[in-house]
Amino acid sequence: MKNQYTLSEEIILPPGFKANGIHAGIKRDKKDLALIASDLPGTIAGIFTTNQVAAAPVTVCREKLASRTGQAIIVNSGNANACNGPQGMTDARRMAQWTADHLGIEERLVYVCSTGHIGEYMPMEKVEQGIPRVIAGLSPTNGLPAAEAIMTTDTKPKYCSARIEIDGTIVTLCGLAKGSGMIHPHMATMLAFITTDAVIEPGALQSALDPAVAQSFNRISVDSDTSTNDTTLVLANGLAGHTVLDETHPQLPFFQKALQAVCHNLALKMVGDGEGATKVITIKVRGAVNDQEADIAARAVAASIEVRCSWHSCKIGWGRVMCALGYSRARVIEEKVDIYYDGLLAVHRGVAADTPPTELIQAVDKTRFELAIDLNTGEGEAVVYSCDCTEEYVRLNTY
Amino acid sequence: MKNQYTLSEEIILPPGFKANGIHAGIKRDKKDLALIASDLPGTIAGIFTTNQVAAAPVTVCREKLASRTGQAIIVNSGNANACNGPQGMTDARRMAQWTADHLGIEERLVYVCSTGHIGEYMPMEKVEQGIPRVIAGLSPTNGLPAAEAIMTTDTKPKYCSARIEIDGTIVTLCGLAKGSGMIHPHMATMLAFITTDAVIEPGALQSALDPAVAQSFNRISVDSDTSTNDTTLVLANGLAGHTVLDETHPQLPFFQKALQAVCHNLALKMVGDGEGATKVITIKVRGAVNDQEADIAARAVAASIEVRCSWHSCKIGWGRVMCALGYSRARVIEEKVDIYYDGLLAVHRGVAADTPPTELIQAVDKTRFELAIDLNTGEGEAVVYSCDCTEEYVRLNTY
Repeated sequence: MKNQYTLSEEIILPPGFKANGIHAGIKRDKKDLALIASDLPGTIAGIFTTNQVAAAPVTVCREKLASRTGQAIIVNSGNANACNGPQGMTDARRMAQWTADHLGIEERLVYVCSTGHIGEYMPMEKVEQGIPRVIAGLSPTNGLPAAEAIMTTDTKPKYCSARIEIDGTIVTLCGLAKGSGMIHPHMATMLAFITTDAVIEPGALQSALDPAVAQSFNRISVDSDTSTNDTTLVLANGLAGHTVLDETHPQLPFFQKALQAVCHNLALKMVGDGEGATKVITIKVRGAVNDQEADIAARAVAASIEVRCSWHSCKIGWGRVMCALGYSRARVIEEKVDIYYDGLLAVHRGVAADTPPTELIQAVDKTRFELAIDLNTGEGEAVVYSCDCTEEYVRLNTY
Repeated sequence: MKNQYTLSEEIILPPGFKANGIHAGIKRDKKDLALIASDLPGTIAGIFTTNQVAAAPVTVCREKLASRTGQAIIVNSGNANACNGPQGMTDARRMAQWTADHLGIEERLVYVCSTGHIGEYMPMEKVEQGIPRVIAGLSPTNGLPAAEAIMTTDTKPKYCSARIEIDGTIVTLCGLAKGSGMIHPHMATMLAFITTDAVIEPGALQSALDPAVAQSFNRISVDSDTSTNDTTLVLANGLAGHTVLDETHPQLPFFQKALQAVCHNLALKMVGDGEGATKVITIKVRGAVNDQEADIAARAVAASIEVRCSWHSCKIGWGRVMCALGYSRARVIEEKVDIYYDGLLAVHRGVAADTPPTELIQAVDKTRFELAIDLNTGEGEAVVYSCDCTEEYVRLNTY
């Protein structure tokens, strides 16, 4: 196991962590209140939406994060507590305060997240009644109801766990998440909570989280158009007892890799469960003038509704890919572009290649395939993930 | 009538112009080949896609436009002749050559446009057989079949006419167009052809067209993401016989206004006939730091699929509007934003206003309404047009 993480498709809360999720009545009949709590305070790091219109709980979390310390995360679905002015801020703080009171810990250690409708005040009576009930059921084995209680249009709960060895000690990471509604413009909120018993210095934890998010959740977040509530938090309670992971610890990169693997796993689950989605497509661009332009080109293709509709109908649709590349801000020379579907050449130097369409259609017909684009103008590379767009998506968004 | 245009919802080809449209067999059973021709050569101006991947006919038109002279425009639907390499260029030139030969005019005077699938070679045998047939039916009263033959997913032909008086002479403008499939990313091609008997100097014609397109077709073209084939051409044959409209003519602004009105009328028809669309929404942003940021904010709202889905379901959806404003690159201060639906205040200083939701829903329920956003941070203003997004849109795009 040394220097290698093992990833599992299950919820293994690290030692000292408990969780639970209940129906508090914010939503009509589904679970809507989740709590993740550690037996003792720990180190916390976070990344939040870049949207200029941030929900009240995001503002509250940002303030709390200055201390780099946390012990519990209270989360509701069904109401975003966004665009609610001073009342929204008061409500977010009260959620944290009530949770802290019932847990018997300091308010500053409780983080708060919300997801759901914008511009409606929180039903605080229901939240107040729900908090003691969600706490009553806290358990090391109640990760699943917590994962369920943060869902909105997700069709299934999203989670995974990883184990690594640091200084000979087993360290666990466990991620729970809910999906962005779709890729672009993905206003439905993305939430991810990772717990770990690693012993880690706050700055090192944030430095580990930043690239993990950049290479996972931000690879499915086209154009950086984030919702009002997007939040990723990682809470480390230190119970594994190994020597502190700081910037000088030789095994910090190893922890970072495991954290990134957890985020990557959750990000792909979000894409695969995009509203109405039936396929996950990996878009690799190479040969761009530089990495940044490769990224711009890949995101233009990933965000194109018409490209994504063509994937759904199992059409090859490379003309729409060419069009999206052409209007992207990346430098594209039509006569140089090669496009591959699962390694099969569809476009060679800007025109249809000889590969029989029937073979290409077999690739597009799969629930997972790779669209590789070589711009043949430089060394820039990027990867993003997208999903197909279906009528179901529009149906879900016209509720 | 002096110094004022009259606009009519009909096709009035100006003196000296004829048109026709037929089924040449490029599409299975609908008209697919159109011709607009003048009895004599005239002045021509054009604006083309900014997409780096431009179709062969666009490249051919750009070359021809250097002469600022034209007499006929041959247009096919069903095949975009894009991403077809040197063969595409040869085919586009042959379309112009054959048309010129059968009309008995110079090849350089014939412009060529295509719209339809990308990456398939033109069925040139059908085009060759179709050209003499479309010419045979040329008539001053066959504008309608021409407007029909350029349609793709449009549900109805798009046209309008305008009349103005210059130096005491009646001048006619007539516009035929096909719609962009949807607003964003609008890969379906936008084509517009305006004919006029005005006498106008080439530079003046182009100067008149530029702002007309900027204030019409580019107001529905979110993010400037244009298709591989987008083309606007205006052909003036000079038969009205008034003194030449040049930059010094006092009535040039008057002609410009009429041309812009024709383009604006056609642009709104495109929005209203967006794939699956049932509503046209005017998005006005004011109070931005400057006009450019107002434009960025308005386009972010207009392009948001989630906002457009909410219009379809007659939800007020102002939370999604706030979110789109927040992730736009325009500077937005949440606590300053006011949002109005048809003049009714929905959001006041970033939070829900007192207007009863039932009244707001009545506004959103209409097939045309205005969404006004005041950012309250400066004097910048912009207007764009959008349409609702429906399941029908996805259905049309998964063909």
